[in-house]
Amino acid sequence: AFAMTACVTTSDPLPSWNDGQTKTNIITFVTKITDKNSVDFVPKEERIATFDNDGTLWSEQPYYFQLAFAFHQVKLMADKHPEWKTTEPFKSVLADDMKGVMASGEKGLLQIVSATHSGMTAEEFEKSVYDWSTTATHPTTGKLFTSMVYQPMLELLQYLRANDFKTFIVSGGGVDFMRVFTEQIYGIPPEQVVGSEIDSQFKLIDGIPTILREPKLLFVDDKAGKPIGIYRHIGRRPIFAAGNSDGDLAMLEYTTISRGPDDKSLRFGLLVHHTDAVREWAYDRDSKIGKLDLGLDEAPKQGWTLVNMKNEWKVIYPTAK
Amino acid sequence: AFAMTACVTTSDPLPSWNDGQTKTNIITFVTKITDKNSVDFVPKEERIATFDNDGTLWSEQPYYFQLAFAFHQVKLMADKHPEWKTTEPFKSVLADDMKGVMASGEKGLLQIVSATHSGMTAEEFEKSVYDWSTTATHPTTGKLFTSMVYQPMLELLQYLRANDFKTFIVSGGGVDFMRVFTEQIYGIPPEQVVGSEIDSQFKLIDGIPTILREPKLLFVDDKAGKPIGIYRHIGRRPIFAAGNSDGDLAMLEYTTISRGPDDKSLRFGLLVHHTDAVREWAYDRDSKIGKLDLGLDEAPKQGWTLVNMKNEWKVIYPTAK
Ligand SMILES: [Ca+2]
Ligand SMILES: [Ca+2]
Repeated sequence: AFAMTACVTTSDPLPSWNDGQTKTNIITFVTKITDKNSVDFVPKEERIATFDNDGTLWSEQPYYFQLAFAFHQVKLMADKHPEWKTTEPFKSVLADDMKGVMASGEKGLLQIVSATHSGMTAEEFEKSVYDWSTTATHPTTGKLFTSMVYQPMLELLQYLRANDFKTFIVSGGGVDFMRVFTEQIYGIPPEQVVGSEIDSQFKLIDGIPTILREPKLLFVDDKAGKPIGIYRHIGRRPIFAAGNSDGDLAMLEYTTISRGPDDKSLRFGLLVHHTDAVREWAYDRDSKIGKLDLGLDEAPKQGWTLVNMKNEWKVIYPTAK
Repeated sequence: AFAMTACVTTSDPLPSWNDGQTKTNIITFVTKITDKNSVDFVPKEERIATFDNDGTLWSEQPYYFQLAFAFHQVKLMADKHPEWKTTEPFKSVLADDMKGVMASGEKGLLQIVSATHSGMTAEEFEKSVYDWSTTATHPTTGKLFTSMVYQPMLELLQYLRANDFKTFIVSGGGVDFMRVFTEQIYGIPPEQVVGSEIDSQFKLIDGIPTILREPKLLFVDDKAGKPIGIYRHIGRRPIFAAGNSDGDLAMLEYTTISRGPDDKSLRFGLLVHHTDAVREWAYDRDSKIGKLDLGLDEAPKQGWTLVNMKNEWKVIYPTAK
């Protein structure tokens, strides 16, 4: 009888989260919206959850991982661009001089991104991201970038999906960059990734259907762009949204703020607060990357759950296998 | 024993399709790609099927149904626009003078679409489409437009989904127009609809998060735009694509043409040929709407299945309940 009792005990859906307000809030929300007898019940098809990526699902320090990919590509492509040895910002990238790269400003970074993300076919770009994602390691942790995902957030994604949520990424990162690995590392398929977009063309080249990536930025999926990206791509208002910076405020507002007295539906907004300087990084109001300033003030007013990473997460990254 | 045998007999997945080449081709394809022991096996997550809408899933004569919606809206909005009584193309719309409307050309149609599809919130637009979709009837058949969907294609969508396909719409129609009713009439959720897109803005208006539709066309999901729409929205090459006009050729090419000697994967291209002047409409090479000219020549060369609507479909529309 003892053994049987143990069998029917529901196992903890969020084992890497310490007991506390966040874990309670999440489980209470999911329990209510999945209970057919609750006034807060939400039909399965409306269970849309959107997650920012950088700083919400994986780390983003000392620079966005997509930039690390771009730097990596500059080095691989340097043979074909002898002029880069003497031209900024490429010269600094090749010399591993991050101060020099950053000194080139936004314009320099755009040049680096453009050179490494366009001017090739969709397949060529995908292969370059795949190769990077399976081999490249982080400058300070030495881990694969793709293993620097947050174990507690993986459990949250899985818990929501187990309760018939469709989980989406809605990130400022390049949509075609993320799609290469989101299914593998998050269980989120390419068609559920919303991100920034560049232009492309379709052509038959030697009879082979080909998509060519063009150096023209079409859409930036950040700030007010996030609700727009959700409207265009998903066409349905989420009931759960998670982010980590002021770039996510519009998405959280769009998701959680009531439309009027008739809109009493239960909504969930979550902000990851980077408070762990030992196991990860600690930054918020003054950070150049992932700045969380207005969000810290808005969270209590809007009823958003602020996750104190240091206190609430038992582990940061998955245990290496 | 007799009754039990009957129970295990597999029922026909496509009952509204006459036995013949198309039905055989479809079932053979699905059987092969779902058979784990077949060299043609395709994992579930890669089972992406894309469908054009107008003329492929529902009728499109005597004019695209989205235009019928626009005409309907012009009449509803006329009170607020007294100048329309004397200004083309609105004057002709209000007078039910279709020749006059068509005489205004593409420019006139764009004015009508712009006036009825932008300058309002996402919710207002959604409500106007919903009201139209549940009440407006077709000028010659008298049926609800939303009941003029093809029963054989509904069965095909259902058959593919029963075999773990994700079914998408990839249509030249406005994405936000279609999304209002695709779940109801096709079982395709909003997030699996790709279409033409206009610009929009996100704002807090009186504290309420609002998406405002802007009169600026951003993306036309037709011809070469279809593979681009698939790349941007789905991020994965389909293994099955269906259309009915030359506007679908690029999508079928993108889906079916081998990428090279290593790409031996099985692919399916389907074109609906409108051959039934009695039960629906008959048109192809010379039609202004849904022109199918190059497609008729390409189909045999590319191995695409051409559906002869008159001969292969037992019924056109679902039987009224
Ligand atoms: Ca972020
Ligand atoms: Ca069509």
